[in-house]
Amino acid sequence: MSELDHTHDPALTSWVHSANGHRDFPIQNLPLGVFSAEGTERRIGVAIGDFILDLTQATDLLDEEHREDLGHPLLNAWLARGPGAQRALRHRLSELLSDTRYRDDVEPMLIGQSEATMHLPCLIGDYTDFYVGIHHATNVGKQFRPDQPLLPNYKYVPIGYHGRASSVRVSGEPVMRPSGQRKAPDADAPVFGPSRRLDYELELGIWIGAGNRLGSPIPIGEAADHIAGYCLLNDWSTRDVQAWEYQPLGPFLAKNFLTSISPWVVTGEALKPFRVAAMPRSASDPEPLDYLRDQDAEPGLGLTVEALISTEAMRAGGLAPHRLSHGEAAAAMYWTVNQIIAHHTVNGCNLQPGDLIGTGTLSTADGEGLGSLLEISKGGKQPLTLPSGETRSFLEDGDEVILTARAEAAGAVSIGFGECRGLVVA
Amino acid sequence: MSELDHTHDPALTSWVHSANGHRDFPIQNLPLGVFSAEGTERRIGVAIGDFILDLTQATDLLDEEHREDLGHPLLNAWLARGPGAQRALRHRLSELLSDTRYRDDVEPMLIGQSEATMHLPCLIGDYTDFYVGIHHATNVGKQFRPDQPLLPNYKYVPIGYHGRASSVRVSGEPVMRPSGQRKAPDADAPVFGPSRRLDYELELGIWIGAGNRLGSPIPIGEAADHIAGYCLLNDWSTRDVQAWEYQPLGPFLAKNFLTSISPWVVTGEALKPFRVAAMPRSASDPEPLDYLRDQDAEPGLGLTVEALISTEAMRAGGLAPHRLSHGEAAAAMYWTVNQIIAHHTVNGCNLQPGDLIGTGTLSTADGEGLGSLLEISKGGKQPLTLPSGETRSFLEDGDEVILTARAEAAGAVSIGFGECRGLVVA
Repeated sequence: MSELDHTHDPALTSWVHSANGHRDFPIQNLPLGVFSAEGTERRIGVAIGDFILDLTQATDLLDEEHREDLGHPLLNAWLARGPGAQRALRHRLSELLSDTRYRDDVEPMLIGQSEATMHLPCLIGDYTDFYVGIHHATNVGKQFRPDQPLLPNYKYVPIGYHGRASSVRVSGEPVMRPSGQRKAPDADAPVFGPSRRLDYELELGIWIGAGNRLGSPIPIGEAADHIAGYCLLNDWSTRDVQAWEYQPLGPFLAKNFLTSISPWVVTGEALKPFRVAAMPRSASDPEPLDYLRDQDAEPGLGLTVEALISTEAMRAGGLAPHRLSHGEAAAAMYWTVNQIIAHHTVNGCNLQPGDLIGTGTLSTADGEGLGSLLEISKGGKQPLTLPSGETRSFLEDGDEVILTARAEAAGAVSIGFGECRGLVVA
Repeated sequence: MSELDHTHDPALTSWVHSANGHRDFPIQNLPLGVFSAEGTERRIGVAIGDFILDLTQATDLLDEEHREDLGHPLLNAWLARGPGAQRALRHRLSELLSDTRYRDDVEPMLIGQSEATMHLPCLIGDYTDFYVGIHHATNVGKQFRPDQPLLPNYKYVPIGYHGRASSVRVSGEPVMRPSGQRKAPDADAPVFGPSRRLDYELELGIWIGAGNRLGSPIPIGEAADHIAGYCLLNDWSTRDVQAWEYQPLGPFLAKNFLTSISPWVVTGEALKPFRVAAMPRSASDPEPLDYLRDQDAEPGLGLTVEALISTEAMRAGGLAPHRLSHGEAAAAMYWTVNQIIAHHTVNGCNLQPGDLIGTGTLSTADGEGLGSLLEISKGGKQPLTLPSGETRSFLEDGDEVILTARAEAAGAVSIGFGECRGLVVA
């Protein structure tokens, strides 16, 4: 906890009253994002309580370096600066929003979140999705490969694959049910049509800050300096398309029609009070190879992640969204975020500011924290019953999936990520 | 051939004398690219013979629309315009470089190719690699899955996967031998170190012009309007890393350390005289699903593609590069480029101007046209003997791989792609 400073002080409050005790955005969080409001272009802002501080209006109150970075409608320049400059901006924003001497100047720069539209926070160069949720990998593996759910490489290689950057969208983007090829196990040939097995996947996204040059791996001890922040990520998937297409080169059309993210970049700095130990290894697990040895005592993300569903009938009947899963991220991740970064670059692959990396689906070992319907319904064989009396094996048109994440720790003010929502439409 | 116009006329010559009879860049080609020369910033140019016409100097001679597009050091704006505007620019460039009335004005805008450095032609949003080379898929499948080389989905699904956009580089970029995990079949655990099975893959790259909106598939009949041009593409691969990491989500570190491309965008328009029929289907092959029925009578690429190797010893001994393979692209491709585009977007996935799509390795059915050392050396079991007396199963440090492509047809002036080179360094 020696890395914490006054911006993490649990006694710190903001003159923006809605921030104090706010579920997601107290002054200890200060996530950045890109928004627009009626009559304004896209711009960078910081979430504080129920408001957004418009940073393009606040430039006179910031250092020159930050002014340059924040003058764009994208966070890439800020991401590229690396942890020192990002921490300096956090300190200044914390000061502006806590010290009442700044209130008269800054208050007119606040915009209600309910009046704003959020956008992608940056230009995403590349999007990579990992597969570090070992319980998810095991649960899914059982369905695709009953004979060998967890492949022999899993405990040596942080498995990942490249995803589609162009179809990443922020929370609220409708999920148009995609069409594709599917083949029943006993059919001779595939058929084409709207997917019948549309699913969500509960993941966290990692925002890359400073990048590395092509040919220069990031040593695991420096990985954290390249992570600017985190978001929620829903890796929408069509399971019927996936089962038919995925061999031998991996998922493609089953995943690339849409990836939804929460719009606020919750910084690694804001999450420091909530770091926890990594998933313990069992005696039979192999030691990681040297380049994957994470010396960080608390590399784990102390976050509770949650998925909720709200069907059309539930909304019509005034029923609240139903919780599908709930669990600790760190309890789901066989590999840490540091291991993810070190592995991704060990061959010299270059990461760039604004790259997005998904963790893979975060499922816990127990039945309360299964991060996809594929797992909850056992591949569709055990449909889930909702409070409305409806059942679900996979998502139906009109269903909305809501992801949330929340960090809590003794002696710290809790922070949240906001929401990542997606409504399925025909 | 009714689509051809005077820019394709085989009798057309340029006042740039080196263009007439030029192997790659006669006036019938006119590929665009991004270059810099001593003392100049990056800018867009068109290759003509041994020269590049600097289009930022030629703006007064172009329509306003083209002026705007060509004022950037990237081709994305030009790519976004679509085929009509691209054809109009081609017509104007053909006129400027053939009509001697323009010579006095235009000649000072020429820069020798030998004095220029080529750069990536555009910002690549996403890079996707397909696997349409059926002989390659069969040859490789035999090594990774002897029991089932060609999986049941291959003749229904144009298999593709997402690659890494950040590590795409133009010809000449050194190939730093990457390290990674590899596991011998009889070993208990993997080891880490420099790859021992570094390989090349001979592919063509497709440059996306006008994109499509998320959720709006491109019908196969409109696919050609979204293809702006082509390049050579070398999908460098570490076979030892690939064999260990690729299940279940596909190749990752085995491919994403570098992808080399030839720098010139050879337009679909320039390649029109060289279109050929698609690979014929055998009676036992299934009919493609409706969305993949290509009604174009000549959707095939009438290109001869070639890979050459030059080792350090060969260069020291004054030996010319040795041809590794040589074959017709259309004879290697089970799926056409139209089928690739239609499949990629059928689930609503959005393509963007500047996206790059690899065809997959182009190997012909005979032994003369095998597009990788993995195939030529039968997985390393039958090393190749070079003119220097050296043998090669995979690439050694100091080896240079050179890819070329050439279009030839009766009644047309042949055009080429230039080269895609890469020298392996430790």
